[in-house]
Amino acid sequence: MSKKIITVSREFGSGGRYIAEQVAKRLDYEYYDKAIIARVAEETGLSEKFIEGEGEYAPKQHWFTYAFVGRDQQGLSLGGRMYAAQRKIILDVAEKESCVIVGRCADDILSDREDCLNVFICGDLKEKTERITKMYELSEKEAQRKMREVDKKRSLHYNYYTERKWGDARNYSIALNSSQIGYEKCIDIICDLAGQ
Amino acid sequence: MSKKIITVSREFGSGGRYIAEQVAKRLDYEYYDKAIIARVAEETGLSEKFIEGEGEYAPKQHWFTYAFVGRDQQGLSLGGRMYAAQRKIILDVAEKESCVIVGRCADDILSDREDCLNVFICGDLKEKTERITKMYELSEKEAQRKMREVDKKRSLHYNYYTERKWGDARNYSIALNSSQIGYEKCIDIICDLAGQ
Repeated sequence: MSKKIITVSREFGSGGRYIAEQVAKRLDYEYYDKAIIARVAEETGLSEKFIEGEGEYAPKQHWFTYAFVGRDQQGLSLGGRMYAAQRKIILDVAEKESCVIVGRCADDILSDREDCLNVFICGDLKEKTERITKMYELSEKEAQRKMREVDKKRSLHYNYYTERKWGDARNYSIALNSSQIGYEKCIDIICDLAGQ
Repeated sequence: MSKKIITVSREFGSGGRYIAEQVAKRLDYEYYDKAIIARVAEETGLSEKFIEGEGEYAPKQHWFTYAFVGRDQQGLSLGGRMYAAQRKIILDVAEKESCVIVGRCADDILSDREDCLNVFICGDLKEKTERITKMYELSEKEAQRKMREVDKKRSLHYNYYTERKWGDARNYSIALNSSQIGYEKCIDIICDLAGQ
């Protein structure tokens, strides 16, 4: 059965987003990453900046503010409201068209569908560091700190909303180490599996 | 760079051992699974039955016996002695020949080598249960209990000896869900990557 939906979770610096984009291009699938942010903003009235931070990261730790201030009429926190809208949009686009969705717990949100290929891309420290130092013009030390921070946030967010463990191989159809396998080979394997 | 060594870790019932055997046959690589047990027995004087149980499972919980009785002259517990011998044998065979090694923390033991492809095979509950009920003539309930027990033991053993997390995608070059991808496709992908 060919896969209509490809979800891509990835470690920061692993090239997962690049791989996802290339897969979407080659398969002529819609590509969803930042586009989801704009749609969530439209639906919720929240700012794109807030959604960008919150949509992949754990609910902020300033629970006091959240508990007593940032709630809507249904009693949802801003983060909860954002997540509910994001979930609805992901379910909608998956229903409507063939697509590649990056991050945003899409693998868990779409876990009832059998036409999903869930992918995790990770990489080795050396290659990820090199990629980040180049892309963000950071020192090696800064790059590794950024890597730890971003992955920690993604992991906390995923574990909070899905009750699964981010990066656990058992959540995904396939997990690939892009440093060891190479970006192009990752793209080939994913496209091949999507068409199976 | 082609991969001389393929290590295969696997969930119970995922067909990981079958996939590993087929990969070895197709690539004409040596296949190491039970053969390691016999060699560890020869080196240590421990019984094959003890090694089979201990070699992939966590050190037994009766620590009192271990602490005061089951130690050799170097102060190693029986489990420790077994693990040290197993480690040495795995390093030896990897040095000597192209091979596929199933389980036994081989991915961690060989982590200094660059010619290793480390594979994790997992599967979906339904397919794993079906496979186990057929192979061991068990009821569905018994199969699922056995699955939980074996995977728990493998996980404890791996986490104890390697300080990594069993099943975490980041330990492996590639992780494949055999229920979603299919056994034959898993074999194809692994053989293709080994020859890269």
